[in-house]
Amino acid sequence: MSNLLSIADLSRKEIERFLDRAESFAEVSGREIKKVPTLRGRRVLNLFYEASTRTRSSFELAAKTLSAEVINFAASGSSVEKGESLKDTVQTMSAYDPAAIVIRHPHAGAAALVAGWTSAAVINAGDGKREHPTQALLDVYTLRRRLGALDGAKIWIVGDVMHSRVARSNIIAFQAMGAEVTVCGPPTLIPRGVEALGCSVAYSLDGVSDADVIYSLRMQNERMTESYIPSLREYARCFQIDGRRLTPRQILMHPGPVNRGVELSAEVIDSPQAVITEQVKAGVVVRMAVLYELLAGSGPSAITPDPSQPSVASERQPA
Amino acid sequence: MSNLLSIADLSRKEIERFLDRAESFAEVSGREIKKVPTLRGRRVLNLFYEASTRTRSSFELAAKTLSAEVINFAASGSSVEKGESLKDTVQTMSAYDPAAIVIRHPHAGAAALVAGWTSAAVINAGDGKREHPTQALLDVYTLRRRLGALDGAKIWIVGDVMHSRVARSNIIAFQAMGAEVTVCGPPTLIPRGVEALGCSVAYSLDGVSDADVIYSLRMQNERMTESYIPSLREYARCFQIDGRRLTPRQILMHPGPVNRGVELSAEVIDSPQAVITEQVKAGVVVRMAVLYELLAGSGPSAITPDPSQPSVASERQPA
Amino acid sequence: MSNLLSIADLSRKEIERFLDRAESFAEVSGREIKKVPTLRGRRVLNLFYEASTRTRSSFELAAKTLSAEVINFAASGSSVEKGESLKDTVQTMSAYDPAAIVIRHPHAGAAALVAGWTSAAVINAGDGKREHPTQALLDVYTLRRRLGALDGAKIWIVGDVMHSRVARSNIIAFQAMGAEVTVCGPPTLIPRGVEALGCSVAYSLDGVSDADVIYSLRMQNERMTESYIPSLREYARCFQIDGRRLTPRQILMHPGPVNRGVELSAEVIDSPQAVITEQVKAGVVVRMAVLYELLAGSGPSAITPDPSQPSVASERQPA
Repeated sequence: MSNLLSIADLSRKEIERFLDRAESFAEVSGREIKKVPTLRGRRVLNLFYEASTRTRSSFELAAKTLSAEVINFAASGSSVEKGESLKDTVQTMSAYDPAAIVIRHPHAGAAALVAGWTSAAVINAGDGKREHPTQALLDVYTLRRRLGALDGAKIWIVGDVMHSRVARSNIIAFQAMGAEVTVCGPPTLIPRGVEALGCSVAYSLDGVSDADVIYSLRMQNERMTESYIPSLREYARCFQIDGRRLTPRQILMHPGPVNRGVELSAEVIDSPQAVITEQVKAGVVVRMAVLYELLAGSGPSAITPDPSQPSVASERQPA
Repeated sequence: MSNLLSIADLSRKEIERFLDRAESFAEVSGREIKKVPTLRGRRVLNLFYEASTRTRSSFELAAKTLSAEVINFAASGSSVEKGESLKDTVQTMSAYDPAAIVIRHPHAGAAALVAGWTSAAVINAGDGKREHPTQALLDVYTLRRRLGALDGAKIWIVGDVMHSRVARSNIIAFQAMGAEVTVCGPPTLIPRGVEALGCSVAYSLDGVSDADVIYSLRMQNERMTESYIPSLREYARCFQIDGRRLTPRQILMHPGPVNRGVELSAEVIDSPQAVITEQVKAGVVVRMAVLYELLAGSGPSAITPDPSQPSVASERQPA
Repeated sequence: MSNLLSIADLSRKEIERFLDRAESFAEVSGREIKKVPTLRGRRVLNLFYEASTRTRSSFELAAKTLSAEVINFAASGSSVEKGESLKDTVQTMSAYDPAAIVIRHPHAGAAALVAGWTSAAVINAGDGKREHPTQALLDVYTLRRRLGALDGAKIWIVGDVMHSRVARSNIIAFQAMGAEVTVCGPPTLIPRGVEALGCSVAYSLDGVSDADVIYSLRMQNERMTESYIPSLREYARCFQIDGRRLTPRQILMHPGPVNRGVELSAEVIDSPQAVITEQVKAGVVVRMAVLYELLAGSGPSAITPDPSQPSVASERQPA
């Protein structure tokens, strides 16, 4: 595998390979000295055409923990503002001989285009409303840690499914791992034909008590002004997960950042069922795993089942 | 000590402990190879909700010189713009398991709130008009180098005391070190009841010739439009430190950036009495000391009076 | 040599010294582990008062590959916005004891001013319409690799010569290396008296088939609104390099970012004659060479003809 463009490209076995690798990195991330020399002297380019705190910083930390050099490019203040095409920008960056390009772009399919223009490994960090595969991997990783396995788990994805690349990638990933997915939201925010992905559809939270996992999506304010919903208050009344909805045996997930009081009540965010900060923590080790598998995984060290020796050795024992 | 939130929390002995540690780092900062492995693999998050050049870059250099990984977050272009609360942002960042969070925020008390939400060491890099403790430490450090000790020194702090967190932290710190502080400015820019901090008040520069040290504050242009002063020219006529005011035996300080021709004349900025660049230089070593004391200082190496062995050893002699 | 302010300051021999050093770094840049410890613990400050993707990232990669610490300053969100003068900003930064300051500024001569205010090595990364010496060096490097030598080569520089610091630096550099330079463009975009630099002038592409190298400049949209040209379409009709103009034996260069369909047709950008990505690649190794020569080149290792031993040794063999 040379790129990570879409969860739909991955078999269950390939997803598990990323998760197993991430498990091996969890130990590194828990150390006081969070640094291994695995990708020393390799260049990772973060090319973000949309604002991002979590995803960018998570990739940056993942790359730095593996000792890679990270260069951040934002679309503002750059040659993109001077009108350079995405293709020319990517070809310029490829001249730096990067090991990986991490790209977020507002257009669906952008990451796949980029992969056609460079010999670097391309990692899709979100392309329009289409996919966000590393988010799906970190969510599966978080759930697997909690549940042992996802087989047979009932997962409800609640909210603005229509505009969510997270929803799309997660429907695919959760099902690939054996879970049963239901998407839930107002009819205006559920894409027509979403059942073709294999999931069920619900237009109210009435049956959500059956779910093992509730995955709440971010409601963006602009959806209200675009008339998808009558008001945020009305949306919250029907689809907010609050203390009455959430049962003690359920797991609550959210990709962040949360709109407190809209899709989630303050009470459930701070409840023991919520694994939101575990998801953030998982983001770093899963992205370390993705970088490792794409950049170092083809070497002999990747064959070894235990990746901690020798290529993930600590700095004190030079590799 | 696990956080640095306020100068008011520190005893004279604790302030001196930071200064002594900073002295030991001054040697590192003077080397050609400005790098020690002390905080290798530790994560330092710079979370700046206000624009900053000096303070942010100074913390960044301090952390990098100690080999820590630095991640910069600015409030713009981030999840903060998407409406995420400070608490949720901090909880997200805490999931990265940082050793320290350096925070600047427009609201007084923000750093203390952050400290309640994370197990990382929290360093206040300026919270509203309240405090800027590392600025006070670097100013005390700079003065101690010049004067030997601050005991009995007469220090005038001149300008917009009302809106200045630097003034507040420095009044406390200078007095804790034995100095006598007078604040001076137009009545509209001196906070009512400032004498409760132990300082004297003057409404003109008439007595400034008695001062051993003149600490000039930055006059922000917006104060004029807010009608605190009739005009910058009028302000400068009454409170500018210029060649007529400054005597050869006095020391002139300023936290930067300077408004040339407003609070200081060009002549005095470039005079031998001015220690403004010494203050900037002190900023790096004092912030190295703060990071060291909070993150590494609890270990056995902190007991050793000479920190250069073994934890501050050069890269060439692995620690 | 302690600064790189202008190509006009360099003899042919000095230019060749930079190029030879860059050749020695090309091997490092081609390795999987792109990292040498040459400038470990040295501080490089990138001070950019104009937007830049290529030049800033190229210097950043060059410095990081040499293991220097890089601090980026942009004019926005900084004390520059608070009205600080360039001199005060530079004096503040000098207090950090940087080994080098890389400066881009909209005013001609800014880099030379900076050099007067700091003991750091100053590298001009573009000062107004005056000079961009590292661009000239990377262009000469790219051509020398293709042609062996520039002596007698006929080079046409086509486009907005008037507003181009790249044109100015390249006219000087190409001629210093023995090439014959012709500048070509509409009369409104050719500066009066440019012949004083030693080049010829053409107001149409009629004779361009004689050229060995065509160096196309970026046409900035704002030139049209400023009435230098009637329209971009009209400009393109007369001065665009396209498949009919470009002969198979010619080399096509452009400093980037390209306006596709204006100064170059899509067809020629992707042709084998175009060396645009080679120029970008050359940018990193040439800037490594400049940093090396200015910061490390005065030591004994610089006398050694082969720089790879010992100061450019790989990380695995500590220097």
